Amino acid sequence: MKAHIISIGNELLIGDTINTNASWIGRFLTERGFHVEEVRTITDDYEHIIGSLHHAFEQADLIISTGGLGPTHDDVTKKAVADMFNSEMILNDEVLEFIREIFRRRGLHFTRSNKDQAMVPKVCEVLFNRKGTAPGMWFEKNGSYLAVLPGVPHEMRHLMETGVEQKIHDHFSGKQFRATRYLRTAGVSESSLSDELVGDLGKFIRNGNGIAYLPSPSGVTIRASTNGTSTEDAESRLKPLVDHIHARAGAYIFGEGRDLELSEVLGQVLNRKNLTLAAAESCTGGLLCNEITDIPGSSAYFTGGVIAYSNQVKINELGVSEKDIQTFGAVSKQVSLQMAKGVAEKFNSDIGVSTTGIAGPEGGTKEKPVGTVWMGFYIDGQHFALQARFTNDRLINKGADCNGSTGNITP
Amino acid sequence: MKAHIISIGNELLIGDTINTNASWIGRFLTERGFHVEEVRTITDDYEHIIGSLHHAFEQADLIISTGGLGPTHDDVTKKAVADMFNSEMILNDEVLEFIREIFRRRGLHFTRSNKDQAMVPKVCEVLFNRKGTAPGMWFEKNGSYLAVLPGVPHEMRHLMETGVEQKIHDHFSGKQFRATRYLRTAGVSESSLSDELVGDLGKFIRNGNGIAYLPSPSGVTIRASTNGTSTEDAESRLKPLVDHIHARAGAYIFGEGRDLELSEVLGQVLNRKNLTLAAAESCTGGLLCNEITDIPGSSAYFTGGVIAYSNQVKINELGVSEKDIQTFGAVSKQVSLQMAKGVAEKFNSDIGVSTTGIAGPEGGTKEKPVGTVWMGFYIDGQHFALQARFTNDRLINKGADCNGSTGNITP
Repeated sequence: MKAHIISIGNELLIGDTINTNASWIGRFLTERGFHVEEVRTITDDYEHIIGSLHHAFEQADLIISTGGLGPTHDDVTKKAVADMFNSEMILNDEVLEFIREIFRRRGLHFTRSNKDQAMVPKVCEVLFNRKGTAPGMWFEKNGSYLAVLPGVPHEMRHLMETGVEQKIHDHFSGKQFRATRYLRTAGVSESSLSDELVGDLGKFIRNGNGIAYLPSPSGVTIRASTNGTSTEDAESRLKPLVDHIHARAGAYIFGEGRDLELSEVLGQVLNRKNLTLAAAESCTGGLLCNEITDIPGSSAYFTGGVIAYSNQVKINELGVSEKDIQTFGAVSKQVSLQMAKGVAEKFNSDIGVSTTGIAGPEGGTKEKPVGTVWMGFYIDGQHFALQARFTNDRLINKGADCNGSTGNITP
Repeated sequence: MKAHIISIGNELLIGDTINTNASWIGRFLTERGFHVEEVRTITDDYEHIIGSLHHAFEQADLIISTGGLGPTHDDVTKKAVADMFNSEMILNDEVLEFIREIFRRRGLHFTRSNKDQAMVPKVCEVLFNRKGTAPGMWFEKNGSYLAVLPGVPHEMRHLMETGVEQKIHDHFSGKQFRATRYLRTAGVSESSLSDELVGDLGKFIRNGNGIAYLPSPSGVTIRASTNGTSTEDAESRLKPLVDHIHARAGAYIFGEGRDLELSEVLGQVLNRKNLTLAAAESCTGGLLCNEITDIPGSSAYFTGGVIAYSNQVKINELGVSEKDIQTFGAVSKQVSLQMAKGVAEKFNSDIGVSTTGIAGPEGGTKEKPVGTVWMGFYIDGQHFALQARFTNDRLINKGADCNGSTGNITP
C-alpha cells in the first residue's frame, strides 16, 4: 500500500512554517501499514497542484493533501481538485450549517467568503470538520483514494483521526500490517553501533526486516520494522532482530519508544530506587537541570541545582578547593568530583552530578581544547568522573551525548 | 531564479524526523532572491533519487539535496548522483585528510566505512565540510546547479553558509536583488501587534512590500521584504515600512535579525552597563540559565544560578521566609521577590531574577491554575514582580514569552 503526501502552501516553501503536518501524517500512515514514498511540498499554484495530483494518482494507493483550503484568494486547492475531476461545485447545506454554528458559538460575523467554504465538488464525499470552517473531502479514482484536508495542524489531525481513519478502515484494512520498534541508545556512536556492535544484519534484511540508525546529538535510535499478515505476525517476525540487537548492544540501550527521553528513564530509576538527585553545572549552564525538570513529576526526585559559572561560586557554594582550581584548573577531574559531592551534600541528596568544561568558542588551550568536559558523579559516598572531548560548537558541547562519535570517556 | 529542494531519507517520510532542513534552506534561498517552487521528500531509493534529480534539473536553476550521505549501507545518494552524471568515483585525498583529522582530534577509531566517505564523483567540486565526515558536492548540468549535502542539520547549515553561499555568489549574483528585515519582538501577541499596534499596511503592500507575522512561543518576529533593481534599491524601498513599524511598535522590538535571541541582547546590555546577573529558578528548572549561557562570553556577566525546585532549597539557599511560603504559597509575589534578592546577594550580583510557578500537568488549584507564574526582579536594591498566566502545557509554560496572547502581566 503506497501513500503520497502533498503539502500545499507558500509559507512552507519559503521557510516561514516548518512542515510538521507531513511528518505527523507520515507517522500516522506508517503505523497503519502504508509505505509513504514521497512528500511533495508545492506552492498555491493551480497548475502545480493539478500536476502533482496526477503524478500521485499514478503512483499511490492513498494520497493525502493538506493546505490551500482557507477563505483567502490565494487558496486554490478546491478549484484545482474540482477541475481535475471535471466536477461542478455544489453548496453543501450540512457543511454550511456546521460553519454557521461555529460562527454563532464564537460570536463572529459571517462573511461571504465563509459561505464559499461550504461549496464542495459534487463528486466528493465530505469529511466533516468539527474544529474549523474548511471541510475535508474524499475522492476516488481508478481504485486510488485522495483526502483533501486543511493545513491548520489541529484541524488536519482531527480529520485524519476521524474521517480518514474510517475510510482507511473501509478501503484498506486487512491488506497489510506493520510492526515497528525503536531502541534508544546513549553513550555509543552510530558507526560503533552499526559496524562493531550490531554488525551485519543481512540475514534479517533478507527475511524482510528493515533497520535504520537515526543519530542525533543526544544519542542514536535504532528503528527496526517489518510487515506481516497480522499485527501478531509482524511482531513475531520482528522479534528475532530485536532480540539480536539487545544481545549485541543491550548495554547501550536505555529503553524503547520513539519519543522516550533519557531524563524520563532516569526519573523512573530514581523513583524506583527511592533516590534523590542534585546537579552542579558549569559548562552546561542549566541545560542538565532543564532536561531533568522537563519530566512531569521530577520534583519527587530532583532537589535542585547550582549553576556555578564562576570559580567563586564553585568555591563558596560547592566547597571546591581554591588550591585545586589553581593547581588542576576549573576543568579537571578533581574539581568535577568536588562539585558533585558539594551539591549532593548542600541539597541533602543521595546523588550529585556535575559538569565542568570548555564550551567555547573561547577559552580553549592546547592541553584542554574547546570541547573538553569533565563530568563528576557522587553516589552515597562513592565517586567517579568521566572526561569527554566533544566538538568546537558551543551548543553541541552543552547538549551532546557522551558517545564515541563525539568524545572519549575516561573513567 | 527557480530553486528545488530534494530531501532524502526514510526517517522523514515515516515521521521519525521533522524536515526542518527544508524550511531552513527555503528561507536561505528566498532571502537570496530564489523562488522555491518545490520540496520533494523521498526515500533512500536509488531509482527514486535519480528520477527526482532529473525532474528538478528540468525545472530549476538551483537544486539543493540533503541526506543519504552517511557511512551506513542505506545511504545511496552519492552512488545515484555519480551514476546520473556517468562519473567514476575517486578518492579525494584532501577530504580523507579532513576526516582523519576529525577522528584524530576526537580520539576515535577510523573504520573502513569512514574511508569510503572520502570517495567522491570525479565530475563534482567538493564543498569542504568542517563539521562532519560527509563532504558536500557541487555539480553543473546545462546551466543548472546541484548541491548535494549531508542531512545532519548543523553540517548542512555550515555547508550552505560557506560553500553554497560562495557558489550562489559566483553563479547567480546580479540577477535579482531582495531586501529582508526581521524585527524581533517580545512581550506582545501577534494579534495585538498586527491589529492594534502596526495596523493597516495597505499602502506599503500596494508599493510592493511584503509583510509577515511569524509567531513562536518565545515571541513574534515581523518579516518585511521587497525586491529591487539593486541591493541598495531594495533596501531603500523597504525602509519606509520598517520605519513605520518601529514608530508604531518600537517598544516591543528588542532587535533585528532572523536568529537574534533575547538572551544575546540581554548580554549586550549587561556588558555595556557593566552589570552582573544571577538567576533563581523554580518552575523553569534551569531553562533560563541555559538560555543565558547559550551565548558565548556569558561568563562575563552571568555569575550563576540556583535551581530551587524544593521549598527547602528556597529557604536554605535563597533566604526565602518559611512563613511567607506557608502564608502566600511558593507561587507568590512575595516568594518571587525574595528569591530574586536572595540569589543576587548570594552570588554578589547587581541583578537577580527569579521564576516560581506551576508548570503542570499536576499541582494546579482553582486560584492558581497550571500556567500561573511569578517572576521576580531585584536590581540594585529595587525590586518588582510580574505575574503571568500561561497554558496547560508544561514545556510551553517553561519557555513561553510573557506576551498578551499567553499571559497577563501584573506589575
